[in-house]
Amino acid sequence: MPYRSPVSEIRFILDHVVPLAPVSATERYAEATPDMVEAILTEAGRMCDEIIAPTNRDGDLTPARLENGVVRSSPGFKEAFAAIAEGGWVGIAADPEYGGMGLPQAINVSVNDMLSGANLALQLNPLLTQGQIEALESHASDEIKALYLPKLTSGEWSGTMNLTEPQAGSDVGALRTKAEPNGDGTYAVSGQKIFITWGDNDCVSNVCHLVLARLPDGAPGTKGISLFMVPKLIPDENGNPGVANSLKVVSLEHKLGIHGSPTCVMSFEGATGWLVGEPHKGMAAMFTMMNNARLNVGVQGIGVAEAAYQKALEYAQDRVQFTPIIEHADVRRMLATMKADIFAARSIALACAVALDMGHATGEADWKARAALLTPIAKAFGTDMGIWAAGEGVQIHGGMGFIEETGAAQYLRDARITAIYEGTNGIQAMDLVGRKMMDGGKAAMALLQEVEDEAKAARATLPDLAEDVWAAAESLRESTEWLVEQDMQDRFAGAAPYLRAFARVLGAHYHLRAAIAAGEGSARAKLAAVYIRRLLPQYAAALAEAKDGAQPLYDLTVEDMGA
Amino acid sequence: MPYRSPVSEIRFILDHVVPLAPVSATERYAEATPDMVEAILTEAGRMCDEIIAPTNRDGDLTPARLENGVVRSSPGFKEAFAAIAEGGWVGIAADPEYGGMGLPQAINVSVNDMLSGANLALQLNPLLTQGQIEALESHASDEIKALYLPKLTSGEWSGTMNLTEPQAGSDVGALRTKAEPNGDGTYAVSGQKIFITWGDNDCVSNVCHLVLARLPDGAPGTKGISLFMVPKLIPDENGNPGVANSLKVVSLEHKLGIHGSPTCVMSFEGATGWLVGEPHKGMAAMFTMMNNARLNVGVQGIGVAEAAYQKALEYAQDRVQFTPIIEHADVRRMLATMKADIFAARSIALACAVALDMGHATGEADWKARAALLTPIAKAFGTDMGIWAAGEGVQIHGGMGFIEETGAAQYLRDARITAIYEGTNGIQAMDLVGRKMMDGGKAAMALLQEVEDEAKAARATLPDLAEDVWAAAESLRESTEWLVEQDMQDRFAGAAPYLRAFARVLGAHYHLRAAIAAGEGSARAKLAAVYIRRLLPQYAAALAEAKDGAQPLYDLTVEDMGA
Repeated sequence: MPYRSPVSEIRFILDHVVPLAPVSATERYAEATPDMVEAILTEAGRMCDEIIAPTNRDGDLTPARLENGVVRSSPGFKEAFAAIAEGGWVGIAADPEYGGMGLPQAINVSVNDMLSGANLALQLNPLLTQGQIEALESHASDEIKALYLPKLTSGEWSGTMNLTEPQAGSDVGALRTKAEPNGDGTYAVSGQKIFITWGDNDCVSNVCHLVLARLPDGAPGTKGISLFMVPKLIPDENGNPGVANSLKVVSLEHKLGIHGSPTCVMSFEGATGWLVGEPHKGMAAMFTMMNNARLNVGVQGIGVAEAAYQKALEYAQDRVQFTPIIEHADVRRMLATMKADIFAARSIALACAVALDMGHATGEADWKARAALLTPIAKAFGTDMGIWAAGEGVQIHGGMGFIEETGAAQYLRDARITAIYEGTNGIQAMDLVGRKMMDGGKAAMALLQEVEDEAKAARATLPDLAEDVWAAAESLRESTEWLVEQDMQDRFAGAAPYLRAFARVLGAHYHLRAAIAAGEGSARAKLAAVYIRRLLPQYAAALAEAKDGAQPLYDLTVEDMGA
Repeated sequence: MPYRSPVSEIRFILDHVVPLAPVSATERYAEATPDMVEAILTEAGRMCDEIIAPTNRDGDLTPARLENGVVRSSPGFKEAFAAIAEGGWVGIAADPEYGGMGLPQAINVSVNDMLSGANLALQLNPLLTQGQIEALESHASDEIKALYLPKLTSGEWSGTMNLTEPQAGSDVGALRTKAEPNGDGTYAVSGQKIFITWGDNDCVSNVCHLVLARLPDGAPGTKGISLFMVPKLIPDENGNPGVANSLKVVSLEHKLGIHGSPTCVMSFEGATGWLVGEPHKGMAAMFTMMNNARLNVGVQGIGVAEAAYQKALEYAQDRVQFTPIIEHADVRRMLATMKADIFAARSIALACAVALDMGHATGEADWKARAALLTPIAKAFGTDMGIWAAGEGVQIHGGMGFIEETGAAQYLRDARITAIYEGTNGIQAMDLVGRKMMDGGKAAMALLQEVEDEAKAARATLPDLAEDVWAAAESLRESTEWLVEQDMQDRFAGAAPYLRAFARVLGAHYHLRAAIAAGEGSARAKLAAVYIRRLLPQYAAALAEAKDGAQPLYDLTVEDMGA
């Protein structure tokens, strides 16, 4: 059985677990009625199942390749991308003024979830373009908006993000790419960028690069970085792709996974660029784009996990060893915990999306703070879970899982990048305990208060599960109170396990909601029990680790580590 | 810096953590003096570093291939294998009567650890041969021993294990391969086998297949299975490779990792075979071989983890993002926990090997029971840890970890199989809570008693760490008492987390020993603190999961799982 988009699962979450209703009730998103959402998700799901998913293995077997300086996409990708563009899926959340649908991020995230499960390598193309659209909407001049946004939104052109250089990965401020004024309002951009996802492709008629570079008077570090639009083909007076710019793809990387996604080394050699936003404010613009990108990368982990789960579930029903292996307790354990964890991660991601939408629609600081708090959790937990689930999927297949033809291994290889790009999961964890706790833990406490209140109320219906969730939330709250009193180094030393504990508790919270909504004895309640009894208990070990502080890690010297 | 065999680490463990001294004190292993062990490990380590490790990447890039029915090994493998054979490393633990060194398994396991870190794909070749030697030593007739053992021990010939068939993986009893008497004492073996590791190769002059097949009067299921020696080339009257047997390699698998190891589909078409052991007793013979193979597969996980750790440690010192990334708390956390977990898994594996050796040397049932108890833990924990550590190694490399040229990803791909073959880790866990608890938990309790006694004694020196270890062991003991009272289905439903909890406690036990031996403030004590404070706490969540029983997993129906 091929991949089937989890439309009804997403619908259930948006109806009952992290309701979209408050979003639809705002003026901005009034169009996102239940009927509209149903129609959108059904249509996107159909495309993912019928058109996108069948290209997934071809992308793995026949990676994108560089031919005379031009990237040739994997077989079938051009047609699959055309379906995405024609359906308007690039611009789900984009401004209607430039051709977008103007729908909530919650819908966009849901479609990205399904697209990621269908073909992660291909999905990166519209995802990067979405990030670029968002950056331009927030920071670009009206001229640039008018020129680029319609074509990006329609999928005629695609967009890339050019941050990384060999010496400047997480330390973006170390970049050396330069932008010199040409005297006519444009800039000459020169430098080399690496890890540029979909840095070129033949699915579109132009590729638009957003490039971070330093102006001659740019200070060292992140404060001296500006953002430039550097198109592959410079638009002519009619806005159509014109003469070639001075940039090229030097080479493509040979990667563990997402073979269908060309990862380019780009060289800019005095390429003509246009400033986006204020001089020296490039990082701020980049961060706008990055926050949503981070959420959507978390969702990539969820999409791949879903696909891996479906494949493993089917195999476990078909494969007979004594009985169908799904009847073996340990295989059932793997499948049940996969399904439970996918639900948890998906709910967290959609909660983040709903908070983003509420923040946009209402302008309320509390919603914005909640979205900001949930973003690193959604990203790191979604991707860690995705890698784990893909690994369990391989394991359930036994020896067949290690054979590439089966397809289970591809999910594992593809998923592995999601914990790394858009800020490694270590950076997400540092973001959570650092920037996202600059409010003294206020946003975290507010969320945990809701978790505890709901758990208390649930005691009447599901006493055992509710009690476990309440106790875990209470413990996390105490740990959070402790955390915000620590210095940064101690927080960082416990950041990754703290994030994991937070995700475990939130997952339990959403499972409890689902169980209450569906009622005792329902499949939802049974799945919630699996999560709360088997996965939630991990929070305690994670919090113990989170509180161990930095000193013991540094007591172990670099010399000790090598001995 | 290329791979460096962890000779001094292994020496420390064998001197202070799971001492080899009692083994050397037996008559059987009197030759294994400290000086001898030092010389052996140093020499093996030198070979691994200088000759074996440099071939690792070549094996990945240029997989073994099938050419006119013959397997051509990866570049450099023939020469590397020759070094292993010439050094006598195939026969470290083999009977001196047939040219082996007759040394303890603890030494063999140590060398296999280093070989696995150097080149896992290649190491499988001598490992499988070692398994075959052991099976022949225990079950074959004197004629077969005299004919095959010298050549297998010297590495002139290699050996394979032919169990799996398409329909018969974990359910070995479902196999269909037949053996018909030829009337001259030989048998005609016919059938197809899959997943045959090193099923053919050009490193040796003959390949000896041990094949499970059913005699005409063999009962259905595992009780009707017999074991046959089926050589690729039938030995002539002088014992040299003679005429070709009726068997062939049909194809090679395209795998996620260990590309240098040819995984063959084998076809036996009335091939001439010789019965090994009693008719219908093939499974018992297979199990002899499998127990040591399981321990050594656990060790493969450890070896790959070591190599992944070394690579990540070097990268973290060289890679500067603001500072060398090893100074970032989260990277340091990853490296410290990797190192701590590798130590734990290695100590468990060597404890298992020492117990095996003591069992062989003394014949004492308690030692045999301990070895049997530790085998599934060493296998499953060593390999799960290996996969996890290889994943952390990729993560520490950031984007570079996803690029194949870096080599970090190869460790992850290679390690993945170790949790699957020689009995999946799920089967190991079932073995632990099933067969290995048929004694009512006696062997487990005896070991936990030692852990608790030592932890109590350590309170004087390292009170905090000792207390944590004691409490964990006590909790595990209580859970074990509970476990042995449960029916099998409930045990199986908690088997994997129970095994993980057991490994966590044992790891803490050996870390505590190391800390006591090296003294307060030592690197060993600091590493023990990292393990006991950051990793040991996971035992509690694992035990909670282990006790949840089967019912909740089956309450969730197959239909619920698909919805």
